[in-house]
Amino acid sequence: MQTIYDYNRLKTFTKNIFLKIGCSEAHAETASTVLLSADLRGVDSHGVARLSGYVRLWEADRINATPNIKIVHQTPSTAVIDGDGGLGLVIAPFAMEIAIEKASKAGTGWVAVRNSNHFGIAGYHAMMGLEHNMIGWAMTNASPLVAPTFSAERLLGTNPIAIAIPANEEPPFVADFATTTAANGKLEILQRKQEDAPEGWIQDKAGKPTQNANGVKDGGALLPLGGDKVHGSHKGYSLGAMVDILSAVLSGANYGPWVPPFVSFLAPPADPVGKGIGHFFGAMTVNAFRPAEEFKEHMDNWIRRFRSSKTVDGHERVLIPGDPEREMEAIRMKKGIPLLLPVVEDLKSLGEKFEVEL
Amino acid sequence: MQTIYDYNRLKTFTKNIFLKIGCSEAHAETASTVLLSADLRGVDSHGVARLSGYVRLWEADRINATPNIKIVHQTPSTAVIDGDGGLGLVIAPFAMEIAIEKASKAGTGWVAVRNSNHFGIAGYHAMMGLEHNMIGWAMTNASPLVAPTFSAERLLGTNPIAIAIPANEEPPFVADFATTTAANGKLEILQRKQEDAPEGWIQDKAGKPTQNANGVKDGGALLPLGGDKVHGSHKGYSLGAMVDILSAVLSGANYGPWVPPFVSFLAPPADPVGKGIGHFFGAMTVNAFRPAEEFKEHMDNWIRRFRSSKTVDGHERVLIPGDPEREMEAIRMKKGIPLLLPVVEDLKSLGEKFEVEL
Repeated sequence: MQTIYDYNRLKTFTKNIFLKIGCSEAHAETASTVLLSADLRGVDSHGVARLSGYVRLWEADRINATPNIKIVHQTPSTAVIDGDGGLGLVIAPFAMEIAIEKASKAGTGWVAVRNSNHFGIAGYHAMMGLEHNMIGWAMTNASPLVAPTFSAERLLGTNPIAIAIPANEEPPFVADFATTTAANGKLEILQRKQEDAPEGWIQDKAGKPTQNANGVKDGGALLPLGGDKVHGSHKGYSLGAMVDILSAVLSGANYGPWVPPFVSFLAPPADPVGKGIGHFFGAMTVNAFRPAEEFKEHMDNWIRRFRSSKTVDGHERVLIPGDPEREMEAIRMKKGIPLLLPVVEDLKSLGEKFEVEL
Repeated sequence: MQTIYDYNRLKTFTKNIFLKIGCSEAHAETASTVLLSADLRGVDSHGVARLSGYVRLWEADRINATPNIKIVHQTPSTAVIDGDGGLGLVIAPFAMEIAIEKASKAGTGWVAVRNSNHFGIAGYHAMMGLEHNMIGWAMTNASPLVAPTFSAERLLGTNPIAIAIPANEEPPFVADFATTTAANGKLEILQRKQEDAPEGWIQDKAGKPTQNANGVKDGGALLPLGGDKVHGSHKGYSLGAMVDILSAVLSGANYGPWVPPFVSFLAPPADPVGKGIGHFFGAMTVNAFRPAEEFKEHMDNWIRRFRSSKTVDGHERVLIPGDPEREMEAIRMKKGIPLLLPVVEDLKSLGEKFEVEL
């Protein structure tokens, strides 16, 4: 059961909700653009389906709608930003702008962020560098759902990494992925359909492999990319840990099991080791390494060679990271964004509460 | 069949071989230290077992023993280095020193390298930042052995990523891993033992999953971390691609299927798109983000929390990236380095040829 909504209609609705909770015009515009970019790119778990979640955190006094986002420390190529408990959807683009500004002077810019909240899809922020002929990076930690290799406890979030690299005639290379075998959103789909999960995605409360899609809900954990030791889960664990450390230990945010949950019905840990959740951004000026035109022509060559690769039987083409999301965006911008019934109902009740028309 | 050799004996032998092929005293010292660090850390595939491979490339005029390594472009936080076809074992530490120097002034330093060769273990170079209270990064591309998701062709190397992060009382966090399910060295061990490989490691020439450990030799490929699409191989493919692009497209080295092979019996591609193979290094001053003492105390807390995690049945402890290699290094420094008989024979014949005593 799906209803199709026009992008602009959902965008305006979302912006109006952010205005109602007290965001400034500029912040509401940014937050709604970032949130909707997830729906456009087909990452439905990170888009308007989460809008009421942000509002509930604001109602619980865990999101500050009028934050004073500021740089607390900086060098020519680095900065640390305190997000003042604001929306990650607003803090992240602010931080990425600083990274881009640093990169335009020093060659690269690297910004660690503390005291933030969920920042939407990582790819949006990484892609901000593209128009400046920069390679963009975005990472964030998240509340613990993932067990390190050999651990029966959840100690890491799904901690995504995004990197966006400009090309010339070809579209950019945009990788954006959780450092787990499967994103939590995919598991939620299986739960709704009451289907089993593939092997290697989750473990139960005792740490035993399970295919029960409710395994994580029941106290189990998602597994790091690789699944188990034989298939390289220590590498996925290393990647998730790297994201956690760069995002939070470097910025002064909460890390590991201390990261506060996104949902308002779970209380944050009573013994925080930092402020809010953490992000990490980077911008690298291509010209600081090699003339951008030369680089981008070689990127075209790289992309064309990989795209024209001989395929495995049953598959039509080899994808370049970012292909599926870009193709989805073109379709949804034109034909609208399909929303599941529970999401529509959730948005409608949010609209009634704040007297905003969907 | 193994023989144990003292570290210093192997180190001196290796240094003398590098001197015999014409390396300077300083270069021979660096190259032998880097090569031996692989044997010490238990990465046997990247240590003295490769010495005769480097020599054969030199004999084939594909390694320059007296390179003029130079910076060809730079900004406050970046540099590109041309390795002049020298030993990667020498070029990599040179590049990492530049990254560290940049980082001490601009907060971070990022160095892309072209016209290089195999640089040994990535972790050695990343760890060079530790004594400066810096986070170190090292990556390299390598000749194509890995098939992207849905591809029946080998287009990427095993393209490792290393990151080293300092702590206070605890030993540092050092991750160093190939972006494939399993490193090629592990496959070679199975080939020697004539054992099957686990599922998810390799595909055959047609791109079908196989457990035949000779699958890669027979024209198949290693699989990206994740193994297949359902288990996230597009993420491993993205990581390997990122390493390739940062190391080679950014520096002007060969990328993807154009990367020249390490072995002298295979000719380099006739239509190069750049010079030699490429590496990418980074150094981030912790103080450029947060006082190093504060950061390192939180790293201790992070490490202790993860190390003390409740474990899955059958496993004694949760490891911190770098634990196994550090423990191996302590043992081998004291008790010596075990070498397989074919490696010993290979070193002995090398010694006879160059009149160097093992």
